[in-house]
Amino acid sequence: MSESTRYSKRTEGVTGSAIRELFKLTARPGVISFGGGNPSPAALPDGIVADISRELVASNGKVLLQYGMTEGLPSLREALVPYAEKEFGIRADVSGILPVTGSTQAFNLLLDAYTDPGDVILTENPTFLGATQAMRLHELRVVPVDSDDKGLRMDALEDAILKYRPRMLYTIPTFQNPTGVTLPTERRRRIAELAEKYDILVAEDDPYHSLRYCGESLPTIKSFDKAGKIAFMGSFSKVISPGLRVGFLICDDAKLMRKCVICKQSDDLHTANLNQAIVEAYLRRDLLAPHVAATCQRYGDQMRCMLDALETMEGVQKFTRPEGGLFIFAWLREGVNATDQLMKAVEKGVAYVPGTYFYPDGGHDNTLRLNFSNADIPTIRRGMALLADALKA
Amino acid sequence: MSESTRYSKRTEGVTGSAIRELFKLTARPGVISFGGGNPSPAALPDGIVADISRELVASNGKVLLQYGMTEGLPSLREALVPYAEKEFGIRADVSGILPVTGSTQAFNLLLDAYTDPGDVILTENPTFLGATQAMRLHELRVVPVDSDDKGLRMDALEDAILKYRPRMLYTIPTFQNPTGVTLPTERRRRIAELAEKYDILVAEDDPYHSLRYCGESLPTIKSFDKAGKIAFMGSFSKVISPGLRVGFLICDDAKLMRKCVICKQSDDLHTANLNQAIVEAYLRRDLLAPHVAATCQRYGDQMRCMLDALETMEGVQKFTRPEGGLFIFAWLREGVNATDQLMKAVEKGVAYVPGTYFYPDGGHDNTLRLNFSNADIPTIRRGMALLADALKA
Repeated sequence: MSESTRYSKRTEGVTGSAIRELFKLTARPGVISFGGGNPSPAALPDGIVADISRELVASNGKVLLQYGMTEGLPSLREALVPYAEKEFGIRADVSGILPVTGSTQAFNLLLDAYTDPGDVILTENPTFLGATQAMRLHELRVVPVDSDDKGLRMDALEDAILKYRPRMLYTIPTFQNPTGVTLPTERRRRIAELAEKYDILVAEDDPYHSLRYCGESLPTIKSFDKAGKIAFMGSFSKVISPGLRVGFLICDDAKLMRKCVICKQSDDLHTANLNQAIVEAYLRRDLLAPHVAATCQRYGDQMRCMLDALETMEGVQKFTRPEGGLFIFAWLREGVNATDQLMKAVEKGVAYVPGTYFYPDGGHDNTLRLNFSNADIPTIRRGMALLADALKA
Repeated sequence: MSESTRYSKRTEGVTGSAIRELFKLTARPGVISFGGGNPSPAALPDGIVADISRELVASNGKVLLQYGMTEGLPSLREALVPYAEKEFGIRADVSGILPVTGSTQAFNLLLDAYTDPGDVILTENPTFLGATQAMRLHELRVVPVDSDDKGLRMDALEDAILKYRPRMLYTIPTFQNPTGVTLPTERRRRIAELAEKYDILVAEDDPYHSLRYCGESLPTIKSFDKAGKIAFMGSFSKVISPGLRVGFLICDDAKLMRKCVICKQSDDLHTANLNQAIVEAYLRRDLLAPHVAATCQRYGDQMRCMLDALETMEGVQKFTRPEGGLFIFAWLREGVNATDQLMKAVEKGVAYVPGTYFYPDGGHDNTLRLNFSNADIPTIRRGMALLADALKA
């Protein structure tokens, strides 16, 4: 190809997830990684999925291996109705639920269907890097809104709404990525009110919802939605398996949902049937609840182990104390650069993600994100000791 | 939602696949459908896939159920290298092969990565409706190029290139959808030359390639590509299972491939691992070739049965005689409207797709597409008798 070849404007300057690139650098043999957002291997139900897969294909393979509907496997959509109500307090109609190829796709479809280049989208600050990348590929103007130790600040949010007239707000209200912070009930209710008042579509991303290790479950923003302005995105990646790529979108705006379906038709025609059927079996056979309970036990222990290590760690100024999810966010001393420190840490044998990547406008160089779901307790102990060493050096 | 709610510009006026909507209308119990593009249930290998699924998840579930790479399952990519060479005459590097969630996604990624709204894309006339829809969602200007009974006319193609300065050409050179026509070798070579000469990216869509029932296999356009201007899209939907949603993109332009990977990251993060592993098993265990041979035997018989019925059918003026694929295209008498006739046919108990939907600019109201892969021979005989009845009436 000639050097002058022109590509699409939307991909100009979008370089791919910096985290995924960083992982390639830090993926040295023997390095303990607190970097990803991967489930524990022990939490991946390979035995059950192996048996279910065979059973499903043997008994219903002529349907599962055939083309399916873009709108999703009808029996999974039906099973998602009571699940949405029980788990998320969301009353949805079958027609308001769209199974998708991971909740990543749900967000991409919403951006396809609802936004035009140049539109403003508000986000938490910091926020999930993958979502920011999707916004950039849609040529949106990303405006981060100040957060405090409970998540989005409502005064800052309303100020930003008045100032920028955004089309959308993207938020992860529960055990946020990267901070682990959970937005209080009153702010959730308020977001639903602001969405109605100012005609803003809220993309509520709630993949960690079921992974709570202490405290009370909070109502979703969507459960306060009276005006059909909240689009809810759920995922089975954290509670069954990310490799299966099944999530779902719930949306009361029939026209918006129809547009999402049309866009999905061009994206991948439909989500793989077998993968949808495996999730359906988890829901219908009551396999999900006990699996999630066991996973919460495991991850809760791992989180407490990591928090204990942080308590006494020199060089760590502050850190979040999540009640669930996969991540802890930490602040090194002012002036210390977590990206520089990462290289030292990797040499010691441990890796994390510098927090700066999660801030749409950069900066906050002294922050870092630690994942506690992937490594077991002995590994977390060893890794945190290595990290303490690296930060001392 | 208020009536005035604004949605994205890209989805304005895109109403979804007319075919899929038509199917809902014609899906009456007992109606024989020649409408879709579905494989025969008998050609869907449920027994083998059931066993393979269990075995793969049981033996490698901790990898398959975990997050995978956007670039695809490394072992599948490796297996695709010799497959691409043997089946399609394409010499590709692992880095030039991207497994995707059905070849639908491959085309969507190319449009994301290479085109801007307003760009011109050339297509055959008629062409695959799903591809046209993807072009419209990318706000491209779709310019159909005249075809004859051997496919794209080279004089018309070069004229259109000079007149419209297109960014891309989309073509299905082998057993085209909807016509079933196959482009001769000399024209394939010529397309590769024109792509280089005029700096046009060619999206070569070749999902039916292996389904040949007579005649000699022809070289792909990609096999003549010296300048890295041909992006090749393959699919396992027609030769293993569409419900698994696995296809692949082959592209020598490293920068374009990188951009496709970045777009895929935002689309669905990665293609489901289990689904990729099932396809890999088909390739590595030499399961694909015998399965394709048996499928060709079946579909070839079905095609000949349908062609025989067309020979004597009153009201059918002309029809294509494909050497493979899934479809026959037919012309009713001038002035007869195939959409009007469809309603009569459905009342008799048989359905097809009016050809007009495949023409980007509409018209050609007397044409229709018939699928011969889904129904077995007794059903084809019965359905064609009903169709003859309907056309007589």
